[in-house]
Amino acid sequence: MSGSSFGKIFSITTWGESHGAGIGVVIDGCPAGIPLTENEIQRYLDRRKPGQSKYTTKRNESDSVEILSGVFEGVTTGTPISLLVRNQDQRSRDYGNIASTFRPGHADYPFTEKYGIRDYRGGGRSSGRETIGRVAAGAVASLLLKELGISVRAYTKSIGPYEIDEKDYHFEEIEENSLYMPNRKTAEKAGEYISSLMAETDSCGGIIECTADGLPVGIGEPVFDKLDAMLARAVMSIGAVKGVEIGDGFAAASSVGSRNNDPFFSEGGVIRKKSNHAGGTLGGLSDGSRLVLRAAVKPTSSISREQSTVNTDGENVRMRVVGRHDPVIVPRAVVVVEAMTALTIADLLLQNMCSRMENIKKVYGAHTGSDTEAASADELS
Amino acid sequence: MSGSSFGKIFSITTWGESHGAGIGVVIDGCPAGIPLTENEIQRYLDRRKPGQSKYTTKRNESDSVEILSGVFEGVTTGTPISLLVRNQDQRSRDYGNIASTFRPGHADYPFTEKYGIRDYRGGGRSSGRETIGRVAAGAVASLLLKELGISVRAYTKSIGPYEIDEKDYHFEEIEENSLYMPNRKTAEKAGEYISSLMAETDSCGGIIECTADGLPVGIGEPVFDKLDAMLARAVMSIGAVKGVEIGDGFAAASSVGSRNNDPFFSEGGVIRKKSNHAGGTLGGLSDGSRLVLRAAVKPTSSISREQSTVNTDGENVRMRVVGRHDPVIVPRAVVVVEAMTALTIADLLLQNMCSRMENIKKVYGAHTGSDTEAASADELS
Amino acid sequence: MSGSSFGKIFSITTWGESHGAGIGVVIDGCPAGIPLTENEIQRYLDRRKPGQSKYTTKRNESDSVEILSGVFEGVTTGTPISLLVRNQDQRSRDYGNIASTFRPGHADYPFTEKYGIRDYRGGGRSSGRETIGRVAAGAVASLLLKELGISVRAYTKSIGPYEIDEKDYHFEEIEENSLYMPNRKTAEKAGEYISSLMAETDSCGGIIECTADGLPVGIGEPVFDKLDAMLARAVMSIGAVKGVEIGDGFAAASSVGSRNNDPFFSEGGVIRKKSNHAGGTLGGLSDGSRLVLRAAVKPTSSISREQSTVNTDGENVRMRVVGRHDPVIVPRAVVVVEAMTALTIADLLLQNMCSRMENIKKVYGAHTGSDTEAASADELS
Amino acid sequence: MSGSSFGKIFSITTWGESHGAGIGVVIDGCPAGIPLTENEIQRYLDRRKPGQSKYTTKRNESDSVEILSGVFEGVTTGTPISLLVRNQDQRSRDYGNIASTFRPGHADYPFTEKYGIRDYRGGGRSSGRETIGRVAAGAVASLLLKELGISVRAYTKSIGPYEIDEKDYHFEEIEENSLYMPNRKTAEKAGEYISSLMAETDSCGGIIECTADGLPVGIGEPVFDKLDAMLARAVMSIGAVKGVEIGDGFAAASSVGSRNNDPFFSEGGVIRKKSNHAGGTLGGLSDGSRLVLRAAVKPTSSISREQSTVNTDGENVRMRVVGRHDPVIVPRAVVVVEAMTALTIADLLLQNMCSRMENIKKVYGAHTGSDTEAASADELS
Repeated sequence: MSGSSFGKIFSITTWGESHGAGIGVVIDGCPAGIPLTENEIQRYLDRRKPGQSKYTTKRNESDSVEILSGVFEGVTTGTPISLLVRNQDQRSRDYGNIASTFRPGHADYPFTEKYGIRDYRGGGRSSGRETIGRVAAGAVASLLLKELGISVRAYTKSIGPYEIDEKDYHFEEIEENSLYMPNRKTAEKAGEYISSLMAETDSCGGIIECTADGLPVGIGEPVFDKLDAMLARAVMSIGAVKGVEIGDGFAAASSVGSRNNDPFFSEGGVIRKKSNHAGGTLGGLSDGSRLVLRAAVKPTSSISREQSTVNTDGENVRMRVVGRHDPVIVPRAVVVVEAMTALTIADLLLQNMCSRMENIKKVYGAHTGSDTEAASADELS
Repeated sequence: MSGSSFGKIFSITTWGESHGAGIGVVIDGCPAGIPLTENEIQRYLDRRKPGQSKYTTKRNESDSVEILSGVFEGVTTGTPISLLVRNQDQRSRDYGNIASTFRPGHADYPFTEKYGIRDYRGGGRSSGRETIGRVAAGAVASLLLKELGISVRAYTKSIGPYEIDEKDYHFEEIEENSLYMPNRKTAEKAGEYISSLMAETDSCGGIIECTADGLPVGIGEPVFDKLDAMLARAVMSIGAVKGVEIGDGFAAASSVGSRNNDPFFSEGGVIRKKSNHAGGTLGGLSDGSRLVLRAAVKPTSSISREQSTVNTDGENVRMRVVGRHDPVIVPRAVVVVEAMTALTIADLLLQNMCSRMENIKKVYGAHTGSDTEAASADELS
Repeated sequence: MSGSSFGKIFSITTWGESHGAGIGVVIDGCPAGIPLTENEIQRYLDRRKPGQSKYTTKRNESDSVEILSGVFEGVTTGTPISLLVRNQDQRSRDYGNIASTFRPGHADYPFTEKYGIRDYRGGGRSSGRETIGRVAAGAVASLLLKELGISVRAYTKSIGPYEIDEKDYHFEEIEENSLYMPNRKTAEKAGEYISSLMAETDSCGGIIECTADGLPVGIGEPVFDKLDAMLARAVMSIGAVKGVEIGDGFAAASSVGSRNNDPFFSEGGVIRKKSNHAGGTLGGLSDGSRLVLRAAVKPTSSISREQSTVNTDGENVRMRVVGRHDPVIVPRAVVVVEAMTALTIADLLLQNMCSRMENIKKVYGAHTGSDTEAASADELS
Repeated sequence: MSGSSFGKIFSITTWGESHGAGIGVVIDGCPAGIPLTENEIQRYLDRRKPGQSKYTTKRNESDSVEILSGVFEGVTTGTPISLLVRNQDQRSRDYGNIASTFRPGHADYPFTEKYGIRDYRGGGRSSGRETIGRVAAGAVASLLLKELGISVRAYTKSIGPYEIDEKDYHFEEIEENSLYMPNRKTAEKAGEYISSLMAETDSCGGIIECTADGLPVGIGEPVFDKLDAMLARAVMSIGAVKGVEIGDGFAAASSVGSRNNDPFFSEGGVIRKKSNHAGGTLGGLSDGSRLVLRAAVKPTSSISREQSTVNTDGENVRMRVVGRHDPVIVPRAVVVVEAMTALTIADLLLQNMCSRMENIKKVYGAHTGSDTEAASADELS
């Protein structure tokens, strides 16, 4: 298992290269009994599909998903769910430049050192297309969470220097702009900024915020598998992400305890917090408040202006990365962050099923009696 | 495995509560042939030991480590290394307040919801003493890395608002101040700041930076087990950490591609980067430059001023967290961040052993011949 | 991860149902640099394909494999290898009987209890077609082993009461009979026995033996992941297998120490054993002698004579299992046992890479120097 | 994780050498809320303690267990349970013979090849004392199972050629003889047989049978983590075990389908089987009948008569294994087989908690409502 699997119980394994036959994911450990159709998954995939706005690559892919297993009569069966998306736009072209030169900001150089061989076509396994499997699996995880009243939502908090303050959030405006920002006006300015960078053959990054509501209290495992720790890994594992924070995050480092602590209060039998600097986790466990995390996305590495680099013969050269590239990947990465968050929560939620004997008796309580009887059936043999 | 294990090949499992019999760790998967003594491990534990400066808790613990297994005649044998630190200062006292009240900023509330029972003495499993196992194991991982010429170093970049710019780093000054800052003057100001907060029964946080030199190129696994992703999980799993970033981190989000990309160049047959905005990873793999990560540590949650909260009966109450607490945990967390970084690198370094057939032949090459012959020995039977 | 994955480093995940869209496997952790084509895998799949003799089901499946990822220009790249076999013979027919009745000897009843839903078509996930993924992955594992001079071979030791003694083995005759027995004459008698059972609408089982030559000494991990323990799990996880033994196996239970111990001797600098009662493992590690294991396969559960059972309404009923079934699955299971053995050895062989520091230095030795230099490149930034 | 961990959710990690400081185990993933004392664990350890009869080693060990963590006020807390047994009888003696010579039937030779170094004292990690951790953890697993009405029982079916037929079982006699056989008379004959072998400086083996009653239907995961597959690994991982079978096991290989299939019937709303050739599993899942498995134990390898072998210099030599050894380890291994069976069932039982959405709703049903409300608390911030 060399890094292509994620999750202990709700466990996914992704595969596929940018210009190979296709991209896919196998979900093992999805509980039986969840209604699931290709349409539900497709809705998530369409949010990351290329060619949706002037800020995304012109690569022409329908990214249609096929369910190959694990679903019977429209319902999950508990067996592995295999999802396949065939690559279509594998246009025959000259890859010579990429094949023999290490693109700055890309995995080309360390990949070659690690494996000795590299599928250079479109970035191979390190392409952004790798996230198709994550999004498809995240769609299934989201359906699982929905059954329990848990919802996950990601959006663009900033593009380059254009950041939206929490007090200016208008969530209903997210779907109205192709940058998925919760403020239409900032989105317009950010759009102009991106256009100006495109003219300069440059690129930019931004910050994605993701929230989750409705989590039971106590999700996450103490010590190494804390909810925030597993989220950090999940989100940092997305190609261009360079930082992750929970709640006040880095700002907490310059706060003081009396301000940063969130006081508890009780109202109508429910325990809440008066503030949420913690971002919904205490000691690595969900605390009943909204989960809030942010991911810093670096500027797109593929830019068509000339850069200095080295070729596979170790010679210093100049190169241009030609082709169809997003000037900013943040908008398309929004659904990927959401997917990774949903997958992390789903897995930890299932792990938490066994936290106490009381839960176990809830599930096996009725079984036990009849089985004890059945067990003696062998006396008849 | 409910979250107390870390690492796939160099795998550790920690155990222990603040006021139980002791704290420990089992390291499984440490290669045979590394010289190891209790003294080597003790040096690391002493760096996180309480009572070393006026800024740390007065709890009196020698934190002496005992090697229970896995070492023979001063060398690791390849079998599990069990390390034990007995708790000593378990003074009998009244825990009534902590037992029945949920401390703000602590895990008390979600822990109780999760398990239905909670060892409230000193925070139980959620105590900072849990990190003893991490540091002890990190010492062993560091020795492994040292054998390969890899060194890891952590220090305090900021305390509250007192942050040191990279150009003002004086690494030789780190050991000269009890805050482990690479600038003596800033450390003095930070010390005064902490003293003023102590007078106000308040606390603060800060930022820890950690670097690693000497990594081979290509360490880390593509997709979910990227070097930066695994580091993010490792560091975020430390109690008070609320954010993690690699290289330029969150600053990269407002940069542009032409500036953020690090150009490669070749010199004397070695490929290097002209800058290191990436912080030593490309596509989740080590790229041959220095690894640089930062962790945001929140202000200590235990403050002795009165706070609003809820008790276990669900009643709104006021509480003071009395006892011996650090006004800032950053200095003692420095070695914990270093330990988690070393553990992560060690594990991924071992995983990478199998990345290509060529490596495998290097190890088994000589064996194969003789064994093929030996295999036919059974014809004699 | 609910049981569809196998292996820690060379890790496979299988998926697919008998009458769904297809069957497949994802191999994660295969080292880069192994030549691999669909033809190599197809050769293994053809050995378990239905319709090859009069003793196997008449289901018409070509079982053609497609490599979807992980191979570039005919060589493995170190990224996940996804293999797909489309189901073809999904003839529309009436499944009413199987859908509503629990077949004796099959998983129908506990599957329904476990998941609440069951893809009853052809046994769904519990069908023998599930082993296609194992065999395809086993083909890749076998190629890896071949690169190191290790070979694995399975054959039929017995069919019902027709067992071949070790002294009567003629390995060259294995491929000459459709039962894969190393003795043509016994194969003939066994064939007649099967024919007589078919006439009586009955079925039989048998014993499969598997050997491996060329293993380096020391493969396997002490305690829980012993070579023999992992082989036992691997082989017992094949549908109809009810027992596994290594070397003398159950016969050893009635032997004595002076006879069962295999004396070592040294010849030409090579350490061998004078006998091989142990079957090639000592303390769970390969000992340099031939690895020998045996699997007991139960009689095919699907028989067309009338049997007593219960339907999904809990009523006592009589049923006949109609359809195309093998009167004995042993011949087709031979390659499955071989595949599981190869997969187990490959994974433990890779795990063993990290057993000692000396091995690790063999791989990283050359790297370290240059990387330390490269690490200082960031000083140029 | 090099083989010292077992179980995915109820996960144990053992450590310790025969003549090191001690032996221990860490249990991670034990649910909170199980009453647990050292006495309960000690009862199991006493069953494998040396020196209990004339057929066991004279080594003098009290094997007293200490609970170091994970239990608070007599109840498990859900955090790791660390158990420690100090070695006492580490008499200083001359190990020269064992240190430099490979004992036939032991792990000495492959261990040395694997690690390059070996703690030769008393067999080091490969000693039977390693099973102390298994038995201690198995005691905890058994308590968990008991809470759900599941009981596990192991006993000696045969010693050398003295085997007890199922129809002659008298379970009440098991505790009456030091061989743990369910037939006093056969135990007497077996005892005489052992005595005769001792006089000849020889040793013998036997077969251990283990049953489990009260399992819910559907425990085990299809494909690789079948209940029988995981049991096979668990039991085969015990030092001297050379074979494992479920139900009719190897006998099934020569049976026919019409006899081997167990017909279902329904009585009073409960589905049972008329026979139990399957041994309680169908398709790798528990089927409601008694679970039945058998393990073949080889004769003790340590015999004091002279044997041929090789020393660490590769020279052919003659050696006698002197010291205190059991002439047969079967009686002391009975509780080890029982422990491994309990551990396997406990882990798969917890894994099965997530098999269907219905179970998940049983656990989170009540939570969800209140948490959704609590989640909006952050609006107050």
